[in-house]
Amino acid sequence: MIDTSPITQQLAFICELDRLKHVLRQTALIDGSRRENSAEHSWHIATMAVVLAEHAAEPFDLGRSLKLLLLHDVVEIDAGDTFCYDADGNRDKEARERRAAERLFGMLPQGQAAELRGLWEEFEAGDTPEARFAHAMDRLEPLLQNHANGGGTWRQHGITRAQVLARMAPLQTATPGLWPTLLALVDEACAKGDIVADAGAHASVSGARR
Amino acid sequence: MIDTSPITQQLAFICELDRLKHVLRQTALIDGSRRENSAEHSWHIATMAVVLAEHAAEPFDLGRSLKLLLLHDVVEIDAGDTFCYDADGNRDKEARERRAAERLFGMLPQGQAAELRGLWEEFEAGDTPEARFAHAMDRLEPLLQNHANGGGTWRQHGITRAQVLARMAPLQTATPGLWPTLLALVDEACAKGDIVADAGAHASVSGARR
Repeated sequence: MIDTSPITQQLAFICELDRLKHVLRQTALIDGSRRENSAEHSWHIATMAVVLAEHAAEPFDLGRSLKLLLLHDVVEIDAGDTFCYDADGNRDKEARERRAAERLFGMLPQGQAAELRGLWEEFEAGDTPEARFAHAMDRLEPLLQNHANGGGTWRQHGITRAQVLARMAPLQTATPGLWPTLLALVDEACAKGDIVADAGAHASVSGARR
Repeated sequence: MIDTSPITQQLAFICELDRLKHVLRQTALIDGSRRENSAEHSWHIATMAVVLAEHAAEPFDLGRSLKLLLLHDVVEIDAGDTFCYDADGNRDKEARERRAAERLFGMLPQGQAAELRGLWEEFEAGDTPEARFAHAMDRLEPLLQNHANGGGTWRQHGITRAQVLARMAPLQTATPGLWPTLLALVDEACAKGDIVADAGAHASVSGARR
């Protein structure tokens, strides 16, 4: 007989979480030595939320935002990581991740399965202050990594300044106080050739700022 | 001139955190393929806290406990990971970690440096409900990993049942509802020879339970 007590279900889910440490993201660590996995990425952005909470544009519950950040990538255990600039991969991403959420959160006792799946859906929808702040953290980490490690995925894929700024948009609204500093990092990366400087836009913005 | 604006200090601290991903613990992942690093460990135990919060023996603030768990190993960036059963390494652990806390949290703006260092000290002291629950999570993860991966560090170092139970003590008080299940996992590991069964104690306990 299979033991399906709530505690056994919770411990089985917890053991399953270990597999997120094998899911590799495209982005490399700051020293460029290897690609980052989604578990350590999730730790980093949750810890960043603790450090940067004061810069949130609107009142929010940091504890809830931490839950969203800790859980946001769990579906990658089944669905894998989808590179943000990969148009093909992003077409069926939602369906793959929904199936993953069904199976993974479904390992938990019923009430908790619904609760944690709800937190994952809240992050995905991005419609609450907690989710908006969480999205900002999720976008900031690879920016800092690519900036530090010589361009990383920007350089590998010939990413343009317009693409980077579109990707960073959640930071402009959720943490506006950080925006000028982050824009300066993007401009530095453009100047080094780590990001492809879009002819018109970049020349005028960087001309105005220097 | 060095830019010491609060935002620049916070971003420098956040980049420094990336180094925790290079600090290897003794314990291997559940599939035994490699050792775990302290960043992914921190993610795992924080997420475990979300899943297991209902089992806490006393009322506690989960959000605060998550902060303790996210920050508890940051000092290892300088001080390294000290294996829990290494008596020599544990003698100067406190001094090494205090120096690390001084330097690392000292990278932050003054008020925040004190706040985050205070959270680290709260975890170390283990005197609040939040810290007690956090300690329990920190002890539970390697138990589940060793149990799943064929004995791991227990087998490598000939660890006895009494040593494992002493290490697990925070779980007995902080999450008593989990205790019978965890004791059963320890007994299973003893039966497989993953843990050295202490003659008297183990025979009598397991005799009483089976």
